[in-house]
Amino acid sequence: MNKSYKILLTGSVIAIGAMGLMANSINSREAERKEINTGPVVQAEGVASKNEEWYRYYPREYDSWKQTKKSDKITDLLREKPQLAIIWAGYGFAKDYNAPRGHFYAIQDNINTLRTGAPTGPSNGPMPTACWTCKSPDVPRLMDEVGENEFFTGKWAKYGNQIVNPIGCADCHNSQTGNLGFSRPHLGRALEASGVNLDEITFQDMRTLVCAQCHVEYYFRPTEWTDKTGKTKTAKVVTLPWAKGLSAENMEEYYDEYSFKDWTHKISKAPMLKAQHPGYELFSKGIHAQNGVSCADCHMPYKQQGSIKYTDHNIGNPLDDIASTCLTCHRDSEKAFRDRVASKLERKEQLMKMAMDTLAAAHLEAGKAWELGATEAEMQPVLELLRSGQWLWDYSIASHGSFFHSPEETLRLLGVANDKGGKARIKLAAILAQHGLIGYQVPDFSTKEKAQALAGVPLQKLITEKKAFESTLLEQWNEEAVKAGRLDPKTLEGMSNKSSWSQTELSQ
Amino acid sequence: MNKSYKILLTGSVIAIGAMGLMANSINSREAERKEINTGPVVQAEGVASKNEEWYRYYPREYDSWKQTKKSDKITDLLREKPQLAIIWAGYGFAKDYNAPRGHFYAIQDNINTLRTGAPTGPSNGPMPTACWTCKSPDVPRLMDEVGENEFFTGKWAKYGNQIVNPIGCADCHNSQTGNLGFSRPHLGRALEASGVNLDEITFQDMRTLVCAQCHVEYYFRPTEWTDKTGKTKTAKVVTLPWAKGLSAENMEEYYDEYSFKDWTHKISKAPMLKAQHPGYELFSKGIHAQNGVSCADCHMPYKQQGSIKYTDHNIGNPLDDIASTCLTCHRDSEKAFRDRVASKLERKEQLMKMAMDTLAAAHLEAGKAWELGATEAEMQPVLELLRSGQWLWDYSIASHGSFFHSPEETLRLLGVANDKGGKARIKLAAILAQHGLIGYQVPDFSTKEKAQALAGVPLQKLITEKKAFESTLLEQWNEEAVKAGRLDPKTLEGMSNKSSWSQTELSQ
Repeated sequence: MNKSYKILLTGSVIAIGAMGLMANSINSREAERKEINTGPVVQAEGVASKNEEWYRYYPREYDSWKQTKKSDKITDLLREKPQLAIIWAGYGFAKDYNAPRGHFYAIQDNINTLRTGAPTGPSNGPMPTACWTCKSPDVPRLMDEVGENEFFTGKWAKYGNQIVNPIGCADCHNSQTGNLGFSRPHLGRALEASGVNLDEITFQDMRTLVCAQCHVEYYFRPTEWTDKTGKTKTAKVVTLPWAKGLSAENMEEYYDEYSFKDWTHKISKAPMLKAQHPGYELFSKGIHAQNGVSCADCHMPYKQQGSIKYTDHNIGNPLDDIASTCLTCHRDSEKAFRDRVASKLERKEQLMKMAMDTLAAAHLEAGKAWELGATEAEMQPVLELLRSGQWLWDYSIASHGSFFHSPEETLRLLGVANDKGGKARIKLAAILAQHGLIGYQVPDFSTKEKAQALAGVPLQKLITEKKAFESTLLEQWNEEAVKAGRLDPKTLEGMSNKSSWSQTELSQ
Repeated sequence: MNKSYKILLTGSVIAIGAMGLMANSINSREAERKEINTGPVVQAEGVASKNEEWYRYYPREYDSWKQTKKSDKITDLLREKPQLAIIWAGYGFAKDYNAPRGHFYAIQDNINTLRTGAPTGPSNGPMPTACWTCKSPDVPRLMDEVGENEFFTGKWAKYGNQIVNPIGCADCHNSQTGNLGFSRPHLGRALEASGVNLDEITFQDMRTLVCAQCHVEYYFRPTEWTDKTGKTKTAKVVTLPWAKGLSAENMEEYYDEYSFKDWTHKISKAPMLKAQHPGYELFSKGIHAQNGVSCADCHMPYKQQGSIKYTDHNIGNPLDDIASTCLTCHRDSEKAFRDRVASKLERKEQLMKMAMDTLAAAHLEAGKAWELGATEAEMQPVLELLRSGQWLWDYSIASHGSFFHSPEETLRLLGVANDKGGKARIKLAAILAQHGLIGYQVPDFSTKEKAQALAGVPLQKLITEKKAFESTLLEQWNEEAVKAGRLDPKTLEGMSNKSSWSQTELSQ
């Protein structure tokens, strides 16, 4: 081998090596590019319902989501606003109604509320399976596994050992792609019914619509279906009443046409509607929505960790972090924002209290009228006013922050709700007089205890039964879920199992 | 003379000439600078009340001001909203009430309205001199000449031949400097009473406050004074009730403490308050004021004529020129603005109608209760609710565009106003029943004619008298004013002398 050949060889080897390194670098960059631009597959098929499984791919998002655990305060709204127990007499909300807590508590709160009762086995208890619909990524997993009709058939207790992970990743993200998407079919159907072309939904739209899967008005529509064995069953399918539009009056017309009622009022006998939480609907009437702002823009601001930008999943009150939320668009001091929002809240609180007082008094006066022998014909216009007025009131305030999302629409609705309640009371004064009672003063409903007594809520019995349920069937559910690998036992750690009634002393 | 001397001389002459020209140029530039930076003296002393006199210095502003003559449509609000005649029964507004027209018609409308009656000489007629206060730059001229107490003493007809120029230049501009300034002392006093340091008012503040001289709530406070001859007289002094604050509730408290009433309601006998037009007060609760926007920013946008920038004095609806108003700050389409404003108006119209219907029915029911022998003690709480509810209603809608200036405050107030009216009606249903009448239906007030008949308005008599006044005393006033050089006769040219009643056929 001569020297020049050696040099040539060495050069060639170096060149080949360098090319190899370059190719390797190109390949690894291409892999990196793919990784950055493609969400990882958390689970190859179906729905990855355990939030913990998303941690390895989305550690920042997961950690911020877990911060919702800190939003753990129980605020007993029946104690703060006892009128509610009168207004909802005969319905679950008169039993127990708290201000919302973080997403982390969705399962715990659903189990703890006295509204879901104390089942002793999979086929009893007051509530249908539909009551789980918005509580957990186990819901889309189950819908995927058993079908939507089967999911919506049966009692709430049917899925006690299946639905165990609180609202989390797979509620809004596809487990194969990580992309935002609907996990609940009811929203897509409702959007189509209200004229939306699903193919034209943008990413920015989606940053609102994934929230709108749950933060909306809905009802449980009885739907007949036939199972594989040919047996006819009735599913109670979560349905959004959007076919006539999204306003309170549109939905009222929808429900009226369908002769739908949620319950018959225990005191006034009015055929009532219960608004759930039409947050998306009210938001869409407000100035932020009109300017293209999404839910996530304010409730899930972008955050920075080192060089990584991510979305904060500690969904809560944007006022907790004005610098990352309001101030990204508006120029003003934090104080100015707080004062402005406070005055909006104050106005709504005033009109809300006014309407609640009117409606509660009207229900009690209607009860008295029945007691004195009022006729169906006399009472019919009163009951219609009560149904309509209370619906408008409920629609306007049942969702988070309606006073901010759409302050003018909220105030308008509260004004009209109160007017209808007032008109019912004017009629009732005449009906009562007709039956010999002039100037009737309704009984005192100024405390939760007094109001629940008037509403006939057997609170102590409900608590006793709930406690028995929690120490038996609930423990069994959790054990089964852990054993089957559906629940990470760590999820239950450090949960104080708080409720409005855990400190209530029971009389012997 | 040698040649070099000649050259020297010629050079010197040229240099001196050039220096002279330069000095002249410097002087004329200095004069120009002064002229640009100093408003001209329209009149050496006192108030230049004839708007025509300002034309030579401010031709663009004058011409744009004169465009307010085009805003000449008469909208009879008693015809559009007949409830008003019931609500104001016993007070001037039940006689005649139109939507506002351009500043140019301030005098004509004040003379034409049936509210100012038909005086036959300087010391009779229903109204005090105070009713001229906001109508003309002749008012500050007169106050300057006779003193404020003398101005506010006597009947409206006292100044019929003095107050002849419609709202114009000297209402907001100083005749010696052209600067913005208060021409009415009541505003300065009210600002001081509400804690404002007048020395800290900025130019931008002034672009709102000159409007606030008139677009505010006020009342005529009886004030004793002694004239030069030692005679004690009572002036009715325009006073802004701001000492407790600017909200509706603040002012209500002020009036209650002072046991003030504007009139006793003819049907219900309630001691009523009439809101004037608290536009500044409501505006100051809204988002535009909170962001430092002035009245002039939207109602008097800057315009360009060649290289000259001037302020448009054709004060009217900013929606007539969205490009020069809203769009200087906001980015959106004109259509988006129109739709947004329309929905604000719609909400306010709904709650306003609701409250008016409730209040009108309550007044009529109260009238029936008195008729059936209700006692003062029974009626007292009803009358208090009527006074308070109607005040809140009136405060919320009496000014221009409250639905836009402060939509949330307007809706809140309408909701509370309606609630108070409703509570009065509930009490009245019991009082009527107590006096043997159950389920009373109030008489029909669905047209202006029906409502005015219920309110006891002698419309034909009022029109006949007004026509007589206009063909006698009014003509005399105008002749005297022209003769004394206080009125340019051209001002009256082309005025169609429109009113709500000019086309009303009188029965023989």
